[in-house]
Amino acid sequence: MSVPATTVTPPLADELDIVIPTIRNLDFLEQWRSFFQPYHLIIVQDGDPTKTIRVPDGFDYELYNRNDINKMLGSKASCISFKDSACRCFGFLVSKKKYIFTIDDDCFVAKDPSGQEINALAQHIQNLLTPATPFFFNTLYDPFREGADFVRGYPFSLREGVTTAISHGLWLNIPDYDAPTQLVKPLERNSRYVDAVLTIPKGTLFPMCGMNLAFHRELIGPAMYFGLMGDGQPIGRYDDMWAGWCAKVICDHLGLGVKTGLPYIWHSKASNPFVNLKKEYKGIYWQEEIIPFFQSVVLSKECTTPQKCYVELSKLVKEKLGPIDPYFQKLAGEMVTWIDAWDQLNPSTDVAQVKKTDTAAAKKK
Amino acid sequence: MSVPATTVTPPLADELDIVIPTIRNLDFLEQWRSFFQPYHLIIVQDGDPTKTIRVPDGFDYELYNRNDINKMLGSKASCISFKDSACRCFGFLVSKKKYIFTIDDDCFVAKDPSGQEINALAQHIQNLLTPATPFFFNTLYDPFREGADFVRGYPFSLREGVTTAISHGLWLNIPDYDAPTQLVKPLERNSRYVDAVLTIPKGTLFPMCGMNLAFHRELIGPAMYFGLMGDGQPIGRYDDMWAGWCAKVICDHLGLGVKTGLPYIWHSKASNPFVNLKKEYKGIYWQEEIIPFFQSVVLSKECTTPQKCYVELSKLVKEKLGPIDPYFQKLAGEMVTWIDAWDQLNPSTDVAQVKKTDTAAAKKK
Repeated sequence: MSVPATTVTPPLADELDIVIPTIRNLDFLEQWRSFFQPYHLIIVQDGDPTKTIRVPDGFDYELYNRNDINKMLGSKASCISFKDSACRCFGFLVSKKKYIFTIDDDCFVAKDPSGQEINALAQHIQNLLTPATPFFFNTLYDPFREGADFVRGYPFSLREGVTTAISHGLWLNIPDYDAPTQLVKPLERNSRYVDAVLTIPKGTLFPMCGMNLAFHRELIGPAMYFGLMGDGQPIGRYDDMWAGWCAKVICDHLGLGVKTGLPYIWHSKASNPFVNLKKEYKGIYWQEEIIPFFQSVVLSKECTTPQKCYVELSKLVKEKLGPIDPYFQKLAGEMVTWIDAWDQLNPSTDVAQVKKTDTAAAKKK
Repeated sequence: MSVPATTVTPPLADELDIVIPTIRNLDFLEQWRSFFQPYHLIIVQDGDPTKTIRVPDGFDYELYNRNDINKMLGSKASCISFKDSACRCFGFLVSKKKYIFTIDDDCFVAKDPSGQEINALAQHIQNLLTPATPFFFNTLYDPFREGADFVRGYPFSLREGVTTAISHGLWLNIPDYDAPTQLVKPLERNSRYVDAVLTIPKGTLFPMCGMNLAFHRELIGPAMYFGLMGDGQPIGRYDDMWAGWCAKVICDHLGLGVKTGLPYIWHSKASNPFVNLKKEYKGIYWQEEIIPFFQSVVLSKECTTPQKCYVELSKLVKEKLGPIDPYFQKLAGEMVTWIDAWDQLNPSTDVAQVKKTDTAAAKKK
């Protein structure tokens, strides 16, 4: 007698959207088919809206080009970057799901040291559904992982952890270097598979890369604005950094966790370092003032939602970073526009508090 | 014509002591022979001083038992614990070297995933001789390691790093769990080799384990006091935790770095969880108050040496933790005795500032 086939439902299939910004045909999805096909895709087409983007058959998707963005947001479309992958945040805005996974179209399936293909999405989901531990460092890394736990000396009162809002994945092959490092080390490749997930401690900033990133849209989505980059703007390649600085400060304020480490994707090709240098150079010196600013940001107690946090942050950006360059005054204004757009498209998601239920499913094994 | 044999000098052979607390014959050294033999050992014999500890032939060592400790320190010997591995810090006191590596006698040579034996000491030395990065998180872990660097978005002004004062290694096989976790998971073994070294960010505390630990004695030695444990004391198994909390706060204040991760040692046997529970139970609830205390400690600007920091910390311990239990008043007193003993045995080591030269050898590759 044969055993009946069981259907395994992919985790969060109805609660997660995959957001992909692109300017080209999405043939890269073929490699991801077995992992991504059960999920809904939101494709944000950057650049020329008359160009047709081909999506492989069998995927469930919606696609937005610049005309769609302008039509849906009207005057508020000014907050969405053009000719820059920062436009990906439009996908976060239009999603109606609880979670987002976003990936670049030059990222492929990586293999772990045993040769097994890595289901990056499944690992992100695991990261998001288990608590984070931002208040004290656990030397054996993620205590919620099979075969690990909190070590001796870890306070018991902190072992419940907090809800994870962000899962930041890494990259094998081409590392995410800035233009100066790319120029100095053109041949460096990342071949080290570090088998760890860890929480970035409260009060510590990190460089968040948008290539391979998942987050809890309801809890932190409004802070995941990728700023003003690309066409008509003085900088590029700081879109994800901006979102990371803002989101980390807000996660810390709201008591949410940020994890980094697994999963790895295979980053196939390095972007042109000369072009990158031109995009980055203002960011490279501006960040020397931006980071001390974010390190010292204190949000008021009244900021109980990501929206409120973000609007308060926009005021601080205007006040403290505005003097550096008029760009930051403009950016501060568009941060408010972004929240207006968020509230317009998500009228009832002003989630007041981190819901305790989010970690209910993640009880310690 | 044959090529002349070259003698490879082990790194820091004249600048590092290995400190081992023990109550038994040191047969475990046989496994470490090729790695440890070039170094000087300081053995601190715990318990009955009439017992003879056998050290395998060929090792260069000095051995101190309780009688030696009493003779050398006189009334100040009260600060050195008896019948507890906390006595190891006596070895830090009598060393005249710049660096210390300390290891437990139930720790053996581990193998990396390729089957290669891990030279734990060499990895600790590498950790100590390369800078740490406590002010911003690098998502590809240690940027000073071969094949890695600072990622895009890491501020350039912070890439010089700071001098590393502490290198905290990990354990394969028996994880360093507290008694409750040991009781709940008696069969759990750590088999995950995480190929990473990372800096514990400024402002974040961690549970420092003394089993496999190296540090810069000149810069942080005076803060490496393992407290009052064992015979006549109400707690045990918090000696290294105490040293870790104090040392981390002082490293943060002095601008020194703390790394954790590689190297792994093979921890051979779990201690008795029932005995451990008895030793730990006061620590388990006291730490719920101790940790918020350390998280909020602010040292004054006048504290420019580890000694000054430690004396000021002792006053805060007396004032803030004293009300919990008279034990902390006693401990605060012995913290001062410890510094007196340090200065007695190390009359000229009141190193004023972190020396820039310490990282000179560690220029970015």
